[in-house]
Amino acid sequence: MEPTRTVHLPPQTGTGLEIRRGELLRIIDPTGEQVSDLVSFARDDLREWLSSGRTIDYANNIYLTTGHTLYSNRSRPMWTILEDTVGRHDFLLTPCSPDTFRIIYGNTDPHPSCFGNLVENLAPFGITPDAIPTTFNVFMNVGVGEDGQLAILPPRSRPGDYLLLKAEMDMVVGVTACSAELSNNGSFKPIDVEVLASVPS
Amino acid sequence: MEPTRTVHLPPQTGTGLEIRRGELLRIIDPTGEQVSDLVSFARDDLREWLSSGRTIDYANNIYLTTGHTLYSNRSRPMWTILEDTVGRHDFLLTPCSPDTFRIIYGNTDPHPSCFGNLVENLAPFGITPDAIPTTFNVFMNVGVGEDGQLAILPPRSRPGDYLLLKAEMDMVVGVTACSAELSNNGSFKPIDVEVLASVPS
Repeated sequence: MEPTRTVHLPPQTGTGLEIRRGELLRIIDPTGEQVSDLVSFARDDLREWLSSGRTIDYANNIYLTTGHTLYSNRSRPMWTILEDTVGRHDFLLTPCSPDTFRIIYGNTDPHPSCFGNLVENLAPFGITPDAIPTTFNVFMNVGVGEDGQLAILPPRSRPGDYLLLKAEMDMVVGVTACSAELSNNGSFKPIDVEVLASVPS
Repeated sequence: MEPTRTVHLPPQTGTGLEIRRGELLRIIDPTGEQVSDLVSFARDDLREWLSSGRTIDYANNIYLTTGHTLYSNRSRPMWTILEDTVGRHDFLLTPCSPDTFRIIYGNTDPHPSCFGNLVENLAPFGITPDAIPTTFNVFMNVGVGEDGQLAILPPRSRPGDYLLLKAEMDMVVGVTACSAELSNNGSFKPIDVEVLASVPS
């Protein structure tokens, strides 16, 4: 099935879009080892947002994959993961921001960031910077040691790998091609986004 | 040093309070194996909230303890952990709510919840239910397996154990004595809260 809409995200950019309940969102890593931050809000009431805490709590697992539901802060299903060719994504960390680069990288130069790209692309939908929660970081590979220490590892995604999500409500959606060196094994790459009317055959 | 204010939280209750920059908050588990959910908002602008994602990102660890800073969504320090006699707290999971008991416990009867107690006690300060993020779950003991699976274990806290936090900004604070059976080894217990003017000698 052909997608009804496609968006090619050049490296270090993002997009905002609306999606209807029942539509599918496919996030594709065309070149491999790239990360894409995803966030969403209920179309009818933007105060309802994608919640890492609710999702992890109900899955009883920090690694979400095929069959898992992503929940809103109101404990309503927002997304169901239908297909996942990678099997490792992160839902612990916030989108990289100017503060991330300052605090973690010691970098004070201007630097594109997922947070900045989400702010810019979600503003036309009425979403303010403070409303952006922890994002679902597609393809991001974060290991957790027994002592709780995190290890930011290269994404496991290879060229053409994807995540296919079904929208469980009408939403405003933000998606990025990540801007953080540490997340994507040191080089910036694009992300492809497709919206499909229903499950591809 | 005597506390300037004390609050005794009976089992399955919560409180809301204001704290000034430089004051200390001590959360005490008087009987052991109890959990206390903590959340806070900047007093001057309630749109700034305690962020699990920013905090975990900058600590590079999911287990926060003495010396760690808890950050806001704007990447500003909200709390510094000065003392911690337990060393195991959770910052992954949302406060237990009526939905938690429905989805995880299959329990549809009315049940007190940390979320409900936070909503009720923060409403007088102008904080809405949708604004309550993932809480810092003091004394909650959550293990993460290599496959990402969570294990909710009995808290490691013994009678009199405590966490001492320094407020890094003026804040509105919510604190609970947790209402979820799974979090506190099956029985509900109180929590004691103290506010101190400065570091006790």
